[in-house]
Amino acid sequence: MRVIFNEEMKSIADNLEHMAQDVHTAIYNAGYALANNDLEAAQKVIEGDAQTDELEATIIDQCVKLLARQNPVATDLRIVVSTMRLATTFKRMGDLSKHIAQSVRRTYPQSPVPQDAQKLFANMVSFVQQTADRMVHMLADRDADIAKEIIEKDDVLDNLHKQVFDYVYSDEFNGTKQQLINVVLLGRFFERIGDHAVSAARRVLFIVSGFNPSLTPTRDEGTDID
Amino acid sequence: MRVIFNEEMKSIADNLEHMAQDVHTAIYNAGYALANNDLEAAQKVIEGDAQTDELEATIIDQCVKLLARQNPVATDLRIVVSTMRLATTFKRMGDLSKHIAQSVRRTYPQSPVPQDAQKLFANMVSFVQQTADRMVHMLADRDADIAKEIIEKDDVLDNLHKQVFDYVYSDEFNGTKQQLINVVLLGRFFERIGDHAVSAARRVLFIVSGFNPSLTPTRDEGTDID
Repeated sequence: MRVIFNEEMKSIADNLEHMAQDVHTAIYNAGYALANNDLEAAQKVIEGDAQTDELEATIIDQCVKLLARQNPVATDLRIVVSTMRLATTFKRMGDLSKHIAQSVRRTYPQSPVPQDAQKLFANMVSFVQQTADRMVHMLADRDADIAKEIIEKDDVLDNLHKQVFDYVYSDEFNGTKQQLINVVLLGRFFERIGDHAVSAARRVLFIVSGFNPSLTPTRDEGTDID
Repeated sequence: MRVIFNEEMKSIADNLEHMAQDVHTAIYNAGYALANNDLEAAQKVIEGDAQTDELEATIIDQCVKLLARQNPVATDLRIVVSTMRLATTFKRMGDLSKHIAQSVRRTYPQSPVPQDAQKLFANMVSFVQQTADRMVHMLADRDADIAKEIIEKDDVLDNLHKQVFDYVYSDEFNGTKQQLINVVLLGRFFERIGDHAVSAARRVLFIVSGFNPSLTPTRDEGTDID
């Protein structure tokens, strides 16, 4: 039984890593598309999203079958349940990357955001790309320290998201209505990617330590505007 | 074993119905708060959200324990896994109701949306309140017909969401920057409540029929702006 469990779990874990890699690629390409107003990169994200959705369905299906056949308990069970929840979190991160890419495609050849917001979004892009790097490493190594880093650093993204609002409310903002809407929605998509990365990190911590940090009182997640 | 499974599952199902009721209340109060600019209703939603989050954690904990102790298979297993996923979907619907309530609180005593958008939002409020009614009945009766109705009717909400964008882009819109942002974000929160209701309906269909409609090709969910 143990050998079969390990083999089946290995196959599921491979699919989950594959999914994390796909989401990593989607986040990188969506960020690149926005920063460089690159339609081709945007298209890749939009077209690639179906595969991420399929992988989620496959992983959940595999987990349900494994639960039925192997009746895992204790840590094994925790891994299976957390894997299902991680797959759903990754799916949402893929969806949000697609939303960013769609925003680039919609306004192409113009950028969706005004010139003087480019720097702020470049910072958000760079932040979520680093988060995507961390996420892949965290998953591959079941690394609790990287998981904690993802949770702690999310403040930086929340602060950038706050800056987006400061910017659009300021007199400095002289973009069009369309650009204002794009800036607000894109800001939210980035912030949500960060929130989902925090969820993913908590699930990995739960696998590694059995301790569920989402059950402990923490600062309110996200900014009030969220 | 069977008796114990049924007893434990009954307790989890009661908690899930309790959660659906809480989300129903949150959606009603958030809608009422927005439609009537009612700070007290908004406060209720904001303060009540922690209980919904706690119920989600409790349900998932109960499901994990049930999986470990009872090793359910076939339909029973499908119910337990779907229950976990439903709890997470309901949690997100509660979060979105809180976002709507926070928007009301932030601009109080002013309404977050301009006078001439009130009608449009009243329609969205009324739609999600009906969806909340359907959701509670669907869950209580495991009713596949109501689930299908929720899925089919979501087009109406998508169309209202599209009207929000038509409205803000039109010359008719003469609100402030703040109001523009509120209208866009509130529109998205309502649309996401609808999307989550569709997910919940699919999970109930999966429980009832064993058929997973999310795996079949359907129209693209949500509008492109999403």
